[in-house]
Amino acid sequence: MTSTTLQTLKGFRDFLPVQMRQRNWVREKVVAAFERSGFQPLETPTLEYKETIMGKYGAEADKLVYQFTDNGEREVAMRYDQTVPVARVMAQYRGQLLLPFRRYQIQNVFRAEKPQRGRYREFLQCDIDLFGSTDTLADAEVVATANAAYAAIGFTKFEIRVNDRQLLTSTLQLLATAEVPVNSIIQSIDKLDKMPADAVAQELQAKGLSAAAAEQVLSSIQAAQPTAALQEIIALAESLGVPANRIVFQPTLARGLDYYTGLIFEIVVDGYRGSLGGGGRYDGLVELLSGISLPAVGFAMGFDRTVEVATELGLLPEALAPAEYLVTVFDDSPEMRQAAAATAAMLRSQGKAVELYPQSVKLSKQLKYASAQGIPNAVIIGPDEWPRGEALVKEMTTGSQSTILIVQK
Amino acid sequence: MTSTTLQTLKGFRDFLPVQMRQRNWVREKVVAAFERSGFQPLETPTLEYKETIMGKYGAEADKLVYQFTDNGEREVAMRYDQTVPVARVMAQYRGQLLLPFRRYQIQNVFRAEKPQRGRYREFLQCDIDLFGSTDTLADAEVVATANAAYAAIGFTKFEIRVNDRQLLTSTLQLLATAEVPVNSIIQSIDKLDKMPADAVAQELQAKGLSAAAAEQVLSSIQAAQPTAALQEIIALAESLGVPANRIVFQPTLARGLDYYTGLIFEIVVDGYRGSLGGGGRYDGLVELLSGISLPAVGFAMGFDRTVEVATELGLLPEALAPAEYLVTVFDDSPEMRQAAAATAAMLRSQGKAVELYPQSVKLSKQLKYASAQGIPNAVIIGPDEWPRGEALVKEMTTGSQSTILIVQK
Repeated sequence: MTSTTLQTLKGFRDFLPVQMRQRNWVREKVVAAFERSGFQPLETPTLEYKETIMGKYGAEADKLVYQFTDNGEREVAMRYDQTVPVARVMAQYRGQLLLPFRRYQIQNVFRAEKPQRGRYREFLQCDIDLFGSTDTLADAEVVATANAAYAAIGFTKFEIRVNDRQLLTSTLQLLATAEVPVNSIIQSIDKLDKMPADAVAQELQAKGLSAAAAEQVLSSIQAAQPTAALQEIIALAESLGVPANRIVFQPTLARGLDYYTGLIFEIVVDGYRGSLGGGGRYDGLVELLSGISLPAVGFAMGFDRTVEVATELGLLPEALAPAEYLVTVFDDSPEMRQAAAATAAMLRSQGKAVELYPQSVKLSKQLKYASAQGIPNAVIIGPDEWPRGEALVKEMTTGSQSTILIVQK
Repeated sequence: MTSTTLQTLKGFRDFLPVQMRQRNWVREKVVAAFERSGFQPLETPTLEYKETIMGKYGAEADKLVYQFTDNGEREVAMRYDQTVPVARVMAQYRGQLLLPFRRYQIQNVFRAEKPQRGRYREFLQCDIDLFGSTDTLADAEVVATANAAYAAIGFTKFEIRVNDRQLLTSTLQLLATAEVPVNSIIQSIDKLDKMPADAVAQELQAKGLSAAAAEQVLSSIQAAQPTAALQEIIALAESLGVPANRIVFQPTLARGLDYYTGLIFEIVVDGYRGSLGGGGRYDGLVELLSGISLPAVGFAMGFDRTVEVATELGLLPEALAPAEYLVTVFDDSPEMRQAAAATAAMLRSQGKAVELYPQSVKLSKQLKYASAQGIPNAVIIGPDEWPRGEALVKEMTTGSQSTILIVQK
């Protein structure tokens, strides 16, 4: 044995059963919400040709792509996000996939980032995207589905902050210069929820805007009113079931990525910094990535952060036990062992999750195991109970016992 | 655009929604069966330190491991199976994980094999393993859980072929030579379901056994009787709900891998060559891999093959539609668009899967889309219906229409 064979690779995680049960619980709620809105599952390979991946995210991101040469001398890269692969799929299978097309994709992505708290090199992304419609109905569907996913997990106190990239662009276009283009101004504006306005104004001046222009950027952004498209999206999302006060127009919202062309939005939970997810419309990106012109609007949930906040808020059911029943084995006689097996089978046939203790050891040891694992009920079938077709069920927390019938007559 | 940017990497697959729905359906059945037996979800990273992976599977397999040097100059390797990673986990988190421990793991593995029909470089493995018990109850639990997984998918005509590696070893030990050790004889025996007995006898002679010894190998294998342990496992598995005639003792069953130490078994479906899954007891492997002595018994489902055979047998529900309803948009008036949105919201609140057509286009085009997508019902809300709080539901296959109420009073 060497030093690293018993270690998880740096920046990567094992998920033990307690975490997995929490993650699966959240994931099932999210999938159910996505599917209720007609989004379809889709998966792409972990590896792609390097050419498919590189040069799509910008030079800084390219450095974070896991890439290597395979045994067949192919240059390959690991999935970095789910947008570039789905753009490839939309182009490669065009004609086969009906438009408008909505898909969800829940797979791990890989980024060779410096590991730090809450940042990992492999993490789960949960994306929905609707392709082939420029209509505000499509934007509203994506916003409403995102809302439904958080609501399904149990979030109640959250905001959906919305803005329109076109509003930002048209408002700021006249203030941009050759030296400070509009996207650079937008990147500074994006910091307004983390930095005071003064500091943003200073940053804009440091970039090269005059003090007057920097002030005007801030005042015109703050005075901006929602576009007609944004008003339509908000009204339709509300018709689609989003509570009326949940969607908040925030003219300073910019979102980092350059590729948005219309709606942008973020999910923010009361009392928690940063967003739990976000998205927007990106009508030019698929063409840039794949050569196929295809409008799109999408949403990505930050899964790790969402599970973390949901856990802190107590939204996850307390009793995510490994099983409902531990069927104990009374002694090592063939009859009692088979009695235990038959009892486990009967409970399972009723759809219960049942662990059969897989050894004839002292009953006290088996009961201790049930307590330690958090299994709420232990079933005991002894030589008194078995001939009568009965079993004792012991509730582990209260210690109270009841009798169940185990032979169906 | 270059030639490879719109291609799936050789040996890898995209799963489009139609396939994904089938795969998810099978996967959900399997997970439910695993969880009813108290198996716990666990996941490990896609990447491991190379030292963790290499030298564990043998020289031939090592060649098939995807490995590379990462940006931090670490030698890393991609998941090749789920046994080595779980052995690392069992050693790394010992003390934290209660024994006996049962886990299921459903993740993709990567093998740089020559692509051929039914063989891919990335594929899903579905494993269960029970650690920490040498008792036949543990073997029976694994066999019964494997049975439950296939039964949950809907398989009825299948066999569970069982044997005991110790029976093979003890039967053949005396016939083995320095030149032809017992594992080499077992590897030939393993071919008896694909090759005639004569050919296997010839192979044994080619390896170096005498003609008489080769004959004796075959006759003693055919005359072998189940061990006491195997009889116990079969009886307990039947108590656990496996139908009495489904478990078949097959003394020629060897399974390829050297690491089995007791029970070995395979799932074989009537009319299909090869097995859909298999497993057995491997009490020495975890120690070999991680230095921690830990008995284990497990099962791995061949997921791709299982989905393929289940599909051919018609076990999958026909109507794995993307949604139950397509809510159409009558025209481009704000009122009709919001009426459609409200109707979609109402149906979704009842738990229905509903696609809202995300564009105001001609109704005939929307209905054509519903047909092409296989969505069974289209909902039409026009200016006559909406004020009355009604909507028309059109069954796409029959064309029959009915009225539903859409305003809840």
